[in-house]
Amino acid sequence: MTLSDDSLRAAWPQPGELPDNLFHFDITAQDPKTHARCGVFHTAHGDVPTPIFMPVGTKATVKGLMPSQVADLGAKIILNNTYHLAMRPGADLVAEMGGVHKFMRWNGPILTDSGGFQVFSHNEFMKLTNEGVSFRAIEYDGARIRWTPEDNMAIAEKLGSDICMQLDQCPGYPATKAYVARAVELSSMWGERCWNAHTRPDQALFGIVQGGMHMDLRLRSLAHLEECGDFPGYGIGGYSVGEDHETMYETLEPLVAEHMPKNKPRYLMGVGNPTTLVRAVASGVDMFDCVLPTRTARMGTAFSSEGRLNLKNARFKHDQRVLDEHCDCPACAGGFTRAYIHHLVRQGEMLGGILLSQHNIRYLLALMERVRAAIAQGRYEQFYRDWMDSPAANDF
Amino acid sequence: MTLSDDSLRAAWPQPGELPDNLFHFDITAQDPKTHARCGVFHTAHGDVPTPIFMPVGTKATVKGLMPSQVADLGAKIILNNTYHLAMRPGADLVAEMGGVHKFMRWNGPILTDSGGFQVFSHNEFMKLTNEGVSFRAIEYDGARIRWTPEDNMAIAEKLGSDICMQLDQCPGYPATKAYVARAVELSSMWGERCWNAHTRPDQALFGIVQGGMHMDLRLRSLAHLEECGDFPGYGIGGYSVGEDHETMYETLEPLVAEHMPKNKPRYLMGVGNPTTLVRAVASGVDMFDCVLPTRTARMGTAFSSEGRLNLKNARFKHDQRVLDEHCDCPACAGGFTRAYIHHLVRQGEMLGGILLSQHNIRYLLALMERVRAAIAQGRYEQFYRDWMDSPAANDF
Ligand SMILES: [Zn+2]
Ligand SMILES: [Zn+2]
Repeated sequence: MTLSDDSLRAAWPQPGELPDNLFHFDITAQDPKTHARCGVFHTAHGDVPTPIFMPVGTKATVKGLMPSQVADLGAKIILNNTYHLAMRPGADLVAEMGGVHKFMRWNGPILTDSGGFQVFSHNEFMKLTNEGVSFRAIEYDGARIRWTPEDNMAIAEKLGSDICMQLDQCPGYPATKAYVARAVELSSMWGERCWNAHTRPDQALFGIVQGGMHMDLRLRSLAHLEECGDFPGYGIGGYSVGEDHETMYETLEPLVAEHMPKNKPRYLMGVGNPTTLVRAVASGVDMFDCVLPTRTARMGTAFSSEGRLNLKNARFKHDQRVLDEHCDCPACAGGFTRAYIHHLVRQGEMLGGILLSQHNIRYLLALMERVRAAIAQGRYEQFYRDWMDSPAANDF
Repeated sequence: MTLSDDSLRAAWPQPGELPDNLFHFDITAQDPKTHARCGVFHTAHGDVPTPIFMPVGTKATVKGLMPSQVADLGAKIILNNTYHLAMRPGADLVAEMGGVHKFMRWNGPILTDSGGFQVFSHNEFMKLTNEGVSFRAIEYDGARIRWTPEDNMAIAEKLGSDICMQLDQCPGYPATKAYVARAVELSSMWGERCWNAHTRPDQALFGIVQGGMHMDLRLRSLAHLEECGDFPGYGIGGYSVGEDHETMYETLEPLVAEHMPKNKPRYLMGVGNPTTLVRAVASGVDMFDCVLPTRTARMGTAFSSEGRLNLKNARFKHDQRVLDEHCDCPACAGGFTRAYIHHLVRQGEMLGGILLSQHNIRYLLALMERVRAAIAQGRYEQFYRDWMDSPAANDF
């Protein structure tokens, strides 16, 4: 069964049924010495306090966790991957099931990414035109898929997330300036077409700023987005694609701190190691997502206030301590020892990845809680310095 | 670090510190028309109501589930595998960690199996003597292991389960009567040696009745166990090893109903499909364990009141129903649809196995709750007939 556009639209709430402050971004605190700020972004599934980290639920599941566990960890919003859901089970099926919230039993806010990042990882199977992009979905049945910005918006509207992202082209690093400029041009054109195509009233559409490591291209990208529509928020794409951290900060910090509009949330896409979160917040970034906490968990690695711990290591065999004595996650508060988790990880037991995923997600969510409290109290500069001086900053 | 026997023993509770009714089996109801009965077996970690199903936590983890989730499903006792824990992380390490309850964070009763079943699956790598058994642990590092009944008891005492099982030899099916007779003789001898070697006061040691499909051998096995010690309960081994169900019942039913002592719990080892549970209870079996609910879950299969469902099947792609509308497990009560679980299973997502494991375990635990209620109300014969007439009985 494929839903007609009309029956799909009939299920949407009407603008009069939605809260007045929908997609408003209320800034609730501004740190006096840094660009860090606290805010609240309002969605139809609840408020999102910022700065925030969003756990990734790629295929409509945060790997290994029940949605109730994700909520218990303190997650306020999660991310799903548009590309993967469009492939399986398909946007029509998700719409038939009442949308992605009902499908996966997560009743809080959901952001769906642009799909561009996954599409553009199909390098040798991809063709790019002004019209859109076509590629072979090699990790599924190899079908050739054609996507226009309008297709991408139709998919997002069927999935029914609270926030969706424009289709964009994300160049890797290194890339020639000409190549990045072309990606900005294409992303700008697609951003405008997405803005014109998107109609779902309970779904916010964010534009995406591209431009690689070139300040002029970043500003050109941002300017075009501001001209072509009134996006309620902006993604910042094209970072963490191979460059080192200092190279990223060279353009990211002035872009965010000096040029991006203050009254809209700024979402640094795909970045999630603790220290980068702490530093990017100081520049004024509001939102983050990354597979790092769950992916590294399944490899046996824990974030901790001592830096990263690889639980496969034999030094944990007799270690009766929990992962991090400062952590209140179900693994640490539950008293599961490093020795037990070492045993689980070595034996390939699912519970190893499950405990570490809960710990790593909670670690980032608790970090963001502390970040918000520090900003609210006007002491973020000190928080930032303390973090950088602590062994936790050694998190690569 | 390896613990000395003395430091290990020093951590055991003294007999005076243990409850007076420890390892007593109180029969609380006897069905008037069948041999089914309700009872309570008392352990140092809590009471076990019978008839009971014990979820299997092979390597000190019920695969994919937090201990708190297992408890929330209503599990009153779980099983761990002595062989696997003896191999990894080793009984000494578990003892150093304070025993298996503390190691895996399960504070309820635990039964550890005999290890015999796993050892005797190492056919071509195994040597058997009156002294004990030696084999190559091929799924670990291939080390040659020698186990005597005394070794087996030392391991069980280090693990610190509430109930441990004697070392036994479990013949497959078919087997010559002479081979089965020899297994009975060896198991009897080992049962006696286990009885004499076992000293831990807060741990019950159960004997195991062998004898294959031969009533005279079953009775000989039982008689020897009753002579050599006062075991607080009996395992029934050597069934569900390749024979069809009717062949099993031919000897199982008279053995349990007419010959096994009434005042001790009877534990049918390794059997867990719902219909066999219902029928064996009618003969007077009190305890069950099986990997079936979790293993089939990880393969994508659900028990249900309609019989088994293979969620990989395309017929579930659009199915908005929960697995079983009569079920109160987190998957069904949480509203996760068959369509969603189909998606998860097809995509190899951990959550598919996690939801199905919870459902299947809850399905068996809820079945046993209904079984106990029916016995307590003296209507087990009717319950049994209704079950056999229902589509749920079609569970193979
Ligand atoms: Zn933790
Ligand atoms: Zn269920």
